[in-house]
Amino acid sequence: MTTSWSGQHARAGRLGVLFAGLGSISTTLIAGVHAIKTGIGRPIGSLAQLGGLDIGAPGSPKFSYLRDCLDLVALDNLVFGGWDIVKTDAYAAAKRAAVLETGLLETLAPELEKIRPWPGIFDNRFNRRNDITFYKKGRQFLDLADQVRSDILQFQDQNHLDRSVLLWCGSTETYLEPSTAHETLSGFEAAMRQSDHAVIAPSMIYAYAALSLGMPFVNATPSRTVDIPALMELAQRSGAPVAGKDLKTGQTLLKTILAPGLRDRMLGLEGWFSTNILGNADGETLDDPAAFKTKRESKLAVLQSMLRPDLYPELYGRFHHDVRINYYPPAGDNKESWDAIDIFGWLDYPMSIRVDFLCRDSILAAPLLLDLALFMDLAKRADLAGPQEWLAFYFKSPLTSNGKPAEHELSKQLIVLQQQLRRLAGISSATPANA
Amino acid sequence: MTTSWSGQHARAGRLGVLFAGLGSISTTLIAGVHAIKTGIGRPIGSLAQLGGLDIGAPGSPKFSYLRDCLDLVALDNLVFGGWDIVKTDAYAAAKRAAVLETGLLETLAPELEKIRPWPGIFDNRFNRRNDITFYKKGRQFLDLADQVRSDILQFQDQNHLDRSVLLWCGSTETYLEPSTAHETLSGFEAAMRQSDHAVIAPSMIYAYAALSLGMPFVNATPSRTVDIPALMELAQRSGAPVAGKDLKTGQTLLKTILAPGLRDRMLGLEGWFSTNILGNADGETLDDPAAFKTKRESKLAVLQSMLRPDLYPELYGRFHHDVRINYYPPAGDNKESWDAIDIFGWLDYPMSIRVDFLCRDSILAAPLLLDLALFMDLAKRADLAGPQEWLAFYFKSPLTSNGKPAEHELSKQLIVLQQQLRRLAGISSATPANA
Amino acid sequence: MTTSWSGQHARAGRLGVLFAGLGSISTTLIAGVHAIKTGIGRPIGSLAQLGGLDIGAPGSPKFSYLRDCLDLVALDNLVFGGWDIVKTDAYAAAKRAAVLETGLLETLAPELEKIRPWPGIFDNRFNRRNDITFYKKGRQFLDLADQVRSDILQFQDQNHLDRSVLLWCGSTETYLEPSTAHETLSGFEAAMRQSDHAVIAPSMIYAYAALSLGMPFVNATPSRTVDIPALMELAQRSGAPVAGKDLKTGQTLLKTILAPGLRDRMLGLEGWFSTNILGNADGETLDDPAAFKTKRESKLAVLQSMLRPDLYPELYGRFHHDVRINYYPPAGDNKESWDAIDIFGWLDYPMSIRVDFLCRDSILAAPLLLDLALFMDLAKRADLAGPQEWLAFYFKSPLTSNGKPAEHELSKQLIVLQQQLRRLAGISSATPANA
Amino acid sequence: MTTSWSGQHARAGRLGVLFAGLGSISTTLIAGVHAIKTGIGRPIGSLAQLGGLDIGAPGSPKFSYLRDCLDLVALDNLVFGGWDIVKTDAYAAAKRAAVLETGLLETLAPELEKIRPWPGIFDNRFNRRNDITFYKKGRQFLDLADQVRSDILQFQDQNHLDRSVLLWCGSTETYLEPSTAHETLSGFEAAMRQSDHAVIAPSMIYAYAALSLGMPFVNATPSRTVDIPALMELAQRSGAPVAGKDLKTGQTLLKTILAPGLRDRMLGLEGWFSTNILGNADGETLDDPAAFKTKRESKLAVLQSMLRPDLYPELYGRFHHDVRINYYPPAGDNKESWDAIDIFGWLDYPMSIRVDFLCRDSILAAPLLLDLALFMDLAKRADLAGPQEWLAFYFKSPLTSNGKPAEHELSKQLIVLQQQLRRLAGISSATPANA
Repeated sequence: MTTSWSGQHARAGRLGVLFAGLGSISTTLIAGVHAIKTGIGRPIGSLAQLGGLDIGAPGSPKFSYLRDCLDLVALDNLVFGGWDIVKTDAYAAAKRAAVLETGLLETLAPELEKIRPWPGIFDNRFNRRNDITFYKKGRQFLDLADQVRSDILQFQDQNHLDRSVLLWCGSTETYLEPSTAHETLSGFEAAMRQSDHAVIAPSMIYAYAALSLGMPFVNATPSRTVDIPALMELAQRSGAPVAGKDLKTGQTLLKTILAPGLRDRMLGLEGWFSTNILGNADGETLDDPAAFKTKRESKLAVLQSMLRPDLYPELYGRFHHDVRINYYPPAGDNKESWDAIDIFGWLDYPMSIRVDFLCRDSILAAPLLLDLALFMDLAKRADLAGPQEWLAFYFKSPLTSNGKPAEHELSKQLIVLQQQLRRLAGISSATPANA
Repeated sequence: MTTSWSGQHARAGRLGVLFAGLGSISTTLIAGVHAIKTGIGRPIGSLAQLGGLDIGAPGSPKFSYLRDCLDLVALDNLVFGGWDIVKTDAYAAAKRAAVLETGLLETLAPELEKIRPWPGIFDNRFNRRNDITFYKKGRQFLDLADQVRSDILQFQDQNHLDRSVLLWCGSTETYLEPSTAHETLSGFEAAMRQSDHAVIAPSMIYAYAALSLGMPFVNATPSRTVDIPALMELAQRSGAPVAGKDLKTGQTLLKTILAPGLRDRMLGLEGWFSTNILGNADGETLDDPAAFKTKRESKLAVLQSMLRPDLYPELYGRFHHDVRINYYPPAGDNKESWDAIDIFGWLDYPMSIRVDFLCRDSILAAPLLLDLALFMDLAKRADLAGPQEWLAFYFKSPLTSNGKPAEHELSKQLIVLQQQLRRLAGISSATPANA
Repeated sequence: MTTSWSGQHARAGRLGVLFAGLGSISTTLIAGVHAIKTGIGRPIGSLAQLGGLDIGAPGSPKFSYLRDCLDLVALDNLVFGGWDIVKTDAYAAAKRAAVLETGLLETLAPELEKIRPWPGIFDNRFNRRNDITFYKKGRQFLDLADQVRSDILQFQDQNHLDRSVLLWCGSTETYLEPSTAHETLSGFEAAMRQSDHAVIAPSMIYAYAALSLGMPFVNATPSRTVDIPALMELAQRSGAPVAGKDLKTGQTLLKTILAPGLRDRMLGLEGWFSTNILGNADGETLDDPAAFKTKRESKLAVLQSMLRPDLYPELYGRFHHDVRINYYPPAGDNKESWDAIDIFGWLDYPMSIRVDFLCRDSILAAPLLLDLALFMDLAKRADLAGPQEWLAFYFKSPLTSNGKPAEHELSKQLIVLQQQLRRLAGISSATPANA
Repeated sequence: MTTSWSGQHARAGRLGVLFAGLGSISTTLIAGVHAIKTGIGRPIGSLAQLGGLDIGAPGSPKFSYLRDCLDLVALDNLVFGGWDIVKTDAYAAAKRAAVLETGLLETLAPELEKIRPWPGIFDNRFNRRNDITFYKKGRQFLDLADQVRSDILQFQDQNHLDRSVLLWCGSTETYLEPSTAHETLSGFEAAMRQSDHAVIAPSMIYAYAALSLGMPFVNATPSRTVDIPALMELAQRSGAPVAGKDLKTGQTLLKTILAPGLRDRMLGLEGWFSTNILGNADGETLDDPAAFKTKRESKLAVLQSMLRPDLYPELYGRFHHDVRINYYPPAGDNKESWDAIDIFGWLDYPMSIRVDFLCRDSILAAPLLLDLALFMDLAKRADLAGPQEWLAFYFKSPLTSNGKPAEHELSKQLIVLQQQLRRLAGISSATPANA
C-alpha cells in the first residue's frame, strides 16, 4: 500500500474528538486511528480516507479522492478524549470490549492508556446498571452540563485544539416518552433546572452542553437525545451542526441496500423477518424490552419509507415486517443477522431470499464515526447549523428538518452526500438527481 | 386490485411480439399476459405496468405511473408468435416448461394452443441436441433469413399489426470465436452466402432478418448474436433498435444490488463465490462447458466493473470471484443461488455474508421481456437506432456503443432508464445525475 | 408404486381414532389416510406403513416390513372422530388449516364433511380465545368427563369398533403450576369435583375420561395433561397405555439427530441458538409468553440430556442454548427454523454450523400420530399399561416411569422402539444394545 | 481444567508416529500434542483422550473414560517423525499450512523445528507438482521401500521406541485404474521390481514398507493405497493392522449424521446437492478433475449405502446426489460446505434443509489421526491383522474384509467401535446391537 494516511491537511488544524461513552465503538476507532498512523492498520470502511468524488464539470467526469479535494483534518491532528461511567482508560476499555486482537492492543497500549475518561453522567432511570459510582454529581442538571462544558474547554486548552466534536456513544437509553418540555428551549431549560428525570436523559445533557458551545454533536445511538425541538432550536441559535441517529451498520445497512433493488425491479414483498444474535454489552442492554422499544422503532420504519406502499399497493400494501434482537454471548462483538425475505413476482409466484450476515458491530461502526467527526467539522467550518440531512448515509433514523421524511436508500443517500461534499469542496455543484 | 391492466393506449396500435424460441420464458410471458388480461393474474415485476416516474420540474417532484405518461401499447393489443425447433404449440411448451401451475395452464389452454411456432433455425454446431427435425432448410443462410422475414411479414399482415419486435430466447449457443467476418456488414453477408458455420450462429440469422426490416431486436441470452460490428452497422442503417444481452434475473441481479452497497460503504472484498443449482433446460445446456463459457464470461465481468479496483486498490485489488452453475433436476425451473461473500472492514477485520436466493428463472424473466418489448417499440417510434444503452437495467452484459464500458449497478441503471423515459414522455428532462 | 396400503390385517379389527382438537394435524392425518386408501397419496413419514425390522436371529439378520410382521389395524379399519371448540366439520377445518392443496381437499370433501366434532372442553384460564361458544357445560368437571366418555362409547357402538385411542391435539395450554392435587388420584378427583381451574386443564379432563375407560391416551402437545402422578396411577389401575408429550417434528427433531453426532465426535459446544418462524395457529398461541413457557421448557431440556456435561465438562460444561418462536404469518403452516450452532474442536478452534429447515409442521406430525395410534393399540392389546417409554422416538419430552431421565437421541430411541416391536411381533428379542 | 492429559500409561511403552506427508493435518496434530502436553491446549475431538465407555455388565451400566480402562500410550510417549517431498521442518510446514495461530506456533517452535522429514517418494504420474527435488531415488520401487524401512528402523532405534505406526497423509493421488498386478502379492512385487508407474502409486510403496515390517498402516486420504488384495494379503501375513480410507471430517461427517435421522423418520429424499469451497493445498489438488475423481467416488457412495433404496424404494428410489469441490483461496484451511437437501413427507409434500458448515479441515482431522495412532497400536498389541472394520467411525470409505459393504452411519459405527474397545479393555463384551 503506497498511500500515506497521515500528514496531509495540516492547515485544517487540530480537532478534538470527544466520546460520551468509551465503549467498544469509540475504543475501536481510537485504536484504529493510532494503528493507521503508525502504518499497521488500514482505514477500511472510511469514505473520508478512501472514497472519491466526481469533481468534473457536467458531462466530463473527473475523479478525485476526498482526501485530495476536501480540507479534512489529518489523522495526525485528531486528539481523543471522553467521558464514561466506568473509570477505566481506553486500553482497559478496549480490552474488555474484546473487538480487537490482543496483539494489536498490546502494541497500542501506551497510546491508549493515556486516554482516561472524565466522570460521565448517569441516571438509573435510563440505564439499569446498579454498580456505577464514577459519575458527575450536581445540584441540578444544569450543573452537570456546566461540568461537561468545562471538561471540554479545559481539554481544548491543554491540547491546543482549534475545534472539537462530541459523539454520543453510550448505551441505548430506556425509552423516553415525548413531553411538552421537549418542545421549546425554555421548557427544556426549566426541566434542566428541576432535574426532571421524566423528561431529560443523560445523553440530552451532553447534547445541551455541546450545542450551547456551538459544537457539532453526533448521536450514534437510537436514543432520542438531540431529536427534540428544544435542542434543535439551541443548535440553530448557537450555529451547531447536529447529526444522528443510530449508526447504520449490519442488518439495517443490508436492508437499505437490498430493499431498493427489489423495489426497482417491482418485485412484491410478502414478509421480511429479521433476527439478530449478538453478545456484546449492546446485546445485553437490548435484551431489556424497554431499551429495545427505542431500537425497534428505529429499525422498523425503514422498509415502509423505501418501498412506498402508497404508490405500489399491489406490491407493498400488506407485507409483514419484524425485527428481533437476541442476546447470545457466544457471538461476542460479532453480530450475526439472519433475514428471511419472502417476495413474489410475475403472477404472484413466491420466491425467497435468506441472508446470513456475520458482521462485527464496532468494526463497521468505527469508520462511520471517523467520517462523521471529520465531516461534521467541515460542516461547522462552513457554518451549517442544525440537522445535517446530507449525512443520512450514516444513520438508521436520519434526522431531518421540519418533519420531512428521511431518505433511507443507501445509494440515494450517497448521491446526496456527494452533492454536499462537492459544494464543500468548492465545486460548482451539479444539479441534484431527479430520481 | 382496482387497477385495470388492459384497454388503455389504443392509439399506440397493435404490436407483434415474436419469440425466436418458444421455451419457458416466452410461454410464461404469453400465458401471463393472457392471465392478466382476463383478471386472474397480476403483472408483478413489470416496470412498464406497475412502475412510475418523477415527471415534475426540478425541485417540485410529481409522480406518474409509466402507463399514464407513456404511449405504451396496451396488453390487449399485443399479438404473440414465434419460431421453435420443436413442433409444439405454446400450451404444450408451457406444460413441458413446468413453470406455471397446471390449473392456470388449463384455464389458458384455448389461447395458448392457438400459438404454433414456425420451424426454427437449427445448427448442430451451436446446439448439441440430436433429435431435432423441425427446422428451416435452405441453400444458404441468406435463404433462411428470407424465410424468417416472410414469416414476419405474413404474420403482420394476417394480424393487422402496426409493428413488431423480435426477441431471441433460444438456448445458450456454444461459444463462438470472434472472426473478421463479424467486423463489417459486407463480410458478414459474404459468410451468410457461404453458410459459414464457423462464423454465423442461428441467433445471428434471426437478428439479420429482423434488423434488415428495421425491426427492434432483443437478445435475452448470453450468446453473442447481435453483438458484432456487422449487425450493429445494419441496425444503424435500417434504423433498428437493438438491446441485449442476457436477462439479469437471479444471482447477477442480487450482485448488482449488493456489491454497489458494499462499495458505497468502502468495505473491502476478499472473495465472492457464487454457485447455482437449477433443473431446467437452461441448466442442462449450461452443464456443457462450451455453452457455460459463454455464460460465465457474462457473469464474471460484473464485479470488476462495479467495484473499480483501479480507484480502490486497497479494497478491490485482489478479490477472488468465481461462478458455478450446476444441473440439479430436483430444482426444476426454480433456480437456487448460494453466494459466499467474504468482506473486510476497519483494520482489515473479516466479515461475511451468505445469501441463499430461491428464485424462479422464468418468473423473473417474463416481466423483463414484456418491458423490453414495450420499451423497444417506444424506441422504434422515437427513431432510436442501434444499441439502446438506457435499457442496461435489464441485462447482465448490456450492449454499449463504441466499446464504452457498461453500467452494471442496478440503481444507476434505473436512473438512466428513467431519464430516457422522461424524454420519451416528452418531459423536459432533468440533467443526468452526476454520480 | 406396487405396495397396497390397505386391506391387510383385517383380523386386527376396527379402531376408533379420536382427536381432542380437530386442527391442522388431525385433519392432515384424516385427509391423508383417505387419500392413501384411494391410491392418490403415499404414507411418507410413517414407520408403521413403510418401515422395517430385523426379525432374524442374532447374527443372521432378516428384514421384514412392520406391516408384514406386526398385527396392525389396517387403514381401511380406522374410523375417525373427535371434539373441537369450533363447530366445523373436518373439511372446513382442513381448509382453514391450509396445509393441503385445495384440489386434494375438494376430492376428499365428501369423506371429510362426514366428520363433525362433538362440543369440546373449553376453559378461558388455559386458552385465551374469547369467541368460543361450542363447548360442553356441566356442574363440575366430573360431568364433563362423563360426557366425553359417553361420546366415546356411543361412537364405538355406532361404528362397530373393537377399540379406540384418544389423541390430545389441542392448542398448547397456558403454563400450569404443579399442585398437590396432581399427586394422587383421590386428590385429583376431589379437584375434579370442585372444578378447580387452578389445578385442572381441559386436556386433563379428556385424559381422565379416556384412562378411566382403559383407553390409550396420547398427548401430542407440550401441555402437562397426563404427565402427573394422579393420572399415571389411573392409567396403571385401568390398564391404559399412555404416551407423550409434544410431537418431535422440526427443529427439535434435527437437534436430536445432529447433537449426538457432534458429541460422538467429541466436538465441544459453545452455543446453540434456535429461532423459528411460523404462521399457523400454533405460532399465534406461542406468541403468548405464558403458553411459550410450557413449550420452551420442553425444547430446552433436550441438549443437556444428550450432551452429558457431567461426563464431558470440557466439551459441554458451559454452552449457551436458547430457543425462540416467532409468529410470522407469511410462513403459514410452513415452519422455518434457523439454527446457529457454534462448536469448537482441536485446541479449542471454533467452527460453526448454520441450518435452515423449511419444514411443514402438520406434514411432519401427521404420520407420527398415525404410528402412535397403531402402536398404542398394539400396546393395549399386549396389556402394557402406563407410560410407553419405547415410544420416546415420537416426542420432544418423552414420558418415563419413576422419574427416569428420558432418552432424547433419535437413533437410540429407534433402537429401543425396534426392540419393543420385535417383542410385540413375537420374536425372541435380541438383547438390548449396551451403548 | 483439572484433567491431566499426560503422564498416564507409562507401561504401554513408547510409540513412533510416522507421517508420510508432513502437511497441514500432521503438523496440526504434532503441534497440538505438544500444546496439550504443556497445558496450553486441549485435545478436543479426540475420543481416546476425552471419550468414555460403558464397562458395566448388561443392565447395570458403568461409565469409564477410555483413558482409564484402556492401556493407551501416553501422549508423553509419542515420538513424531515422517517423510515429505519438500524439505522443511515441521515448524516451517505448520507455518505454511496456516492452520494454527502464529502465537501458538512461535511458542512451540523449538519442539517443531526438531522434526525434519526424510526425503519422500515422488512420482509425477500421481502428483502434478513440477518443482519437487527432495525425494528418494532408487533403481526400482523395491529399493525405495527398503529406504523407507531403514528410515523407520533407525528412527525406532535412535528414539528407543517400542513400536511405530505409519499414517499416509499425502496429497490425494491421481485416480489409478485397477490392475491385475493389484490382485496378488506376487504380482504386486513383480510390479515393484519393474517400477511400474501404471500400477504402483507412491502411497503403495510406503504401505508395502510398513506392512512388510508388520507395522500398523493408516490411509488418511481417498487414494487407493492399501485397498488392494495384494497388500491386504501382505498385512495378513505379517500381522499388520490396516485402516482407511479418507478421514471423515466436514460435509461427509454431517451427511452420515443427518441422513440416517431422515431415514429413521421415513422421510423421502428427492435430492442432495453438496458443494464445498476450500482454499488449502487439498482444494488446489482436487481442482484437478483426475484427483477429484478419486475423492468424488469416495463421497458419493455414502448416501446409497445408508438410505437403502432396495428396502425403501418409495423414499429413496430416485434421488439426485451430487458433490462439488471448488478451490476458493479466501477460505484458506477453513472448509465451508453448503448442502441443499430436498426431502418430502406425508402425501409427498416437499420440505428442505440447507446446511452451511464452516469447518476447519485439519482441526477436525488431527484428533482423528491421534485416535487412529493409539487404537491401531492397541490392535497391533492384540494381534489383530488386516482391515480394522471397527475403525469405520473415522473414514469416508471404510475398508472392509471380503467385499462386505461398509457401515457409514456414524451412530452405528460408534456402537461397533465401542464393542471392540470393550473387548480390548478385557470386558466381557455385550452382545452386538441387533439393529
